[in-house]
Amino acid sequence: MRFSPLFWPIELKNNKIYILDETLLPHQVSYIEATNYEQACLAIKDMKTRAVGQVLLVMYTFLLEAAKGTDLNMVSEAINAARPSLPFKVLTDMVLGWVKSGAPIERSILGFLDGLKAKRIQQAEEASKLINDKDVILTHCNVSGLMPLIADFCKEQNKSISFFVTETRPYLQGMRLTVWELQEAGYQATIICDNAVAQVMAEGRINKVIVGADHLALNGDIANKIGTYQIAILARQFKIPFYVLCPPPSKAATGAEIKIEIRPENEILEFGGKLIAPKGARAYYPAFDVTPNEFIAQHVYLKI
Amino acid sequence: MRFSPLFWPIELKNNKIYILDETLLPHQVSYIEATNYEQACLAIKDMKTRAVGQVLLVMYTFLLEAAKGTDLNMVSEAINAARPSLPFKVLTDMVLGWVKSGAPIERSILGFLDGLKAKRIQQAEEASKLINDKDVILTHCNVSGLMPLIADFCKEQNKSISFFVTETRPYLQGMRLTVWELQEAGYQATIICDNAVAQVMAEGRINKVIVGADHLALNGDIANKIGTYQIAILARQFKIPFYVLCPPPSKAATGAEIKIEIRPENEILEFGGKLIAPKGARAYYPAFDVTPNEFIAQHVYLKI
Repeated sequence: MRFSPLFWPIELKNNKIYILDETLLPHQVSYIEATNYEQACLAIKDMKTRAVGQVLLVMYTFLLEAAKGTDLNMVSEAINAARPSLPFKVLTDMVLGWVKSGAPIERSILGFLDGLKAKRIQQAEEASKLINDKDVILTHCNVSGLMPLIADFCKEQNKSISFFVTETRPYLQGMRLTVWELQEAGYQATIICDNAVAQVMAEGRINKVIVGADHLALNGDIANKIGTYQIAILARQFKIPFYVLCPPPSKAATGAEIKIEIRPENEILEFGGKLIAPKGARAYYPAFDVTPNEFIAQHVYLKI
Repeated sequence: MRFSPLFWPIELKNNKIYILDETLLPHQVSYIEATNYEQACLAIKDMKTRAVGQVLLVMYTFLLEAAKGTDLNMVSEAINAARPSLPFKVLTDMVLGWVKSGAPIERSILGFLDGLKAKRIQQAEEASKLINDKDVILTHCNVSGLMPLIADFCKEQNKSISFFVTETRPYLQGMRLTVWELQEAGYQATIICDNAVAQVMAEGRINKVIVGADHLALNGDIANKIGTYQIAILARQFKIPFYVLCPPPSKAATGAEIKIEIRPENEILEFGGKLIAPKGARAYYPAFDVTPNEFIAQHVYLKI
C-alpha cells in the first residue's frame, strides 16, 4: 500500500515535529520544523497544514510537550484558539481526558494515531465501493491523501476512474494538492475553475461528487472548504450523487452551530504577495461553508 | 452623465483604432493601437477587449477598412473567425447588408454606434427600475460600464445600492474590471471568490443578481461568461431574482445551438505567465456557459 505525502503529512522524530508545508506544494516538497506548541499553533494558523494534518499536528504537539513535562491545559488552550472554526476541542478534550484518567499519555496518543491510520484506510475502501467502473468523479479542495487511496482501491476492484478537480480559490488546494497527488499516483485529473462546475455537469461529464469535511454536526450537516455547499446544490440540480468523507462528529447539533471562520481579505486580493485587485478594494472571505444533510447522498464515516 | 472607460472602450481617431487593453486593468489604463483589420482581430482573439468592446471594435474596423477601400467581405470573414462562440456574424451580416444596399457605409456605421450608445443608456435605466433602495446586487464578470451606470440611475431615484462581485476566474474580470469601475464611480463593491456564492446567498447578503450576456437565443436562453449558469441555479435555490442585461438576439433558436468556446488550458494553469498547477497537469476551460430561460426572472433587452 502506497500513500500520498498528504495522507500523513506530519511526523515526530527526535523531539522535532516535521510539518509538510502544503502552501509550497506542488512545486516544492518541504517540511517545517516545530520544537514547541507555539510554533505548531502558528503552522495551524498560517494554514501550512490542513484537515488531517491538523489532527496529526495537534496529537504530535501533545506528545512533544508531554515529554517535556509542559502543562497540557495550556497547550490545549493555545491549540483551540489557533483556528476557531475547526473542532480541535474534540481532540484536546480527549487528550486532557486521558491525562485526567492517569493513562500513560504517550501510549494513548500513539494508540490513537495507529487507529486513525487504519480507520482512514478503511474509509477510503468504503468510499471505493460507491464507485462504478468508468466513473468520473468531481472533487473540491483536498482530502489529505484519500482520493488517490480511493482510486487505488477502485483499481484493485478492476474499476478505472478519473477525476475533475476544482481549483479551490483562493489557496488552490484542489489544483495544487489534489491534482498533484492524483497525478503522482498515476490517475487522470483535470482542473476546472470553481465557476465551471455547472457547465461541466451540464455536459454530462461527472458521475459522482466526493468531498471531504472539516466538521460533521450530529444531524449530518457538514462544514467544509468554501465552495462545497454550492457544488452540493449543483449536484442535486443535475441528479449527481454527492458523497462526503466525514471526520468524527463534533458536539454541534446542526450546521447552524458551526462557526464559520472569516479569513483576511488580502488572501483574496493578493496573489503570490502581489496585489491583483484594484487598490483599495475590499473582499469577503468565509473560508468554509455548511452543506445541509439533505444534499448529501451518503456520508462515509470514519469507523469508530 | 459620466461613463466608465469600459462603457465605450474603443475609439477611432485619425485612421487609428484605440483599444482599451482590459487585460492590464486595473493597474494600468492603456490603449492598444490598430491600423488594420488583422491587428483588430488579434486584439479580439487575445481578449484585449470583450463584450461591447468587441462590437465597437468590429464596427470601427469596418469603418477604418471602408475608408481604405478594402474588400469588406474579407474583413467580415476574418472577424467571424476570431472567436467562434461570439455572434459576430449578426454584425458582419448587417454591415455587408448596408454595403449591398448601396448605403453610405460611414454614415450607416456611425448611425448604428450613436443608436447603440443611446440604447445602452436606456438599458441601464430600465435595469435600475428593477432595483429597490438598499438592495445588494451580486454580479459576475463585467458588463462594460453598465453596472456603474445602473447605480447612477438608482442614485437619481434616491436608491442607495451596493455590490458583491465574483472574481471570475481565470481572467478575473469581476475583480479587475467591475470592482474597479464601481469603485471609481464611488460605489461599494465587495469581491468574493467564485466558490463563495452559495454561502454569501445563504447568509442573506444578496437581494438581486444582475449579469450581462454575450449571446441571446430566440427562446430567451443566454450564453455568458463561465460561472453565470451556476449563479442562476443558486439564485433560484435561494429565491433571489436573476436579471440579465441582454444583447440583441442572435439566430440561435435555443441555447443548445450556441457553440461554447473552449479556450487554451494554460489560461488556467498559469498566472502572470508562471505555472501555478503541478507540472504536466491538464485543465478544461469552457469560456462560456448557457443559462436556460427558465432561470431568468427578467431579461433587460437592448431596445431596438
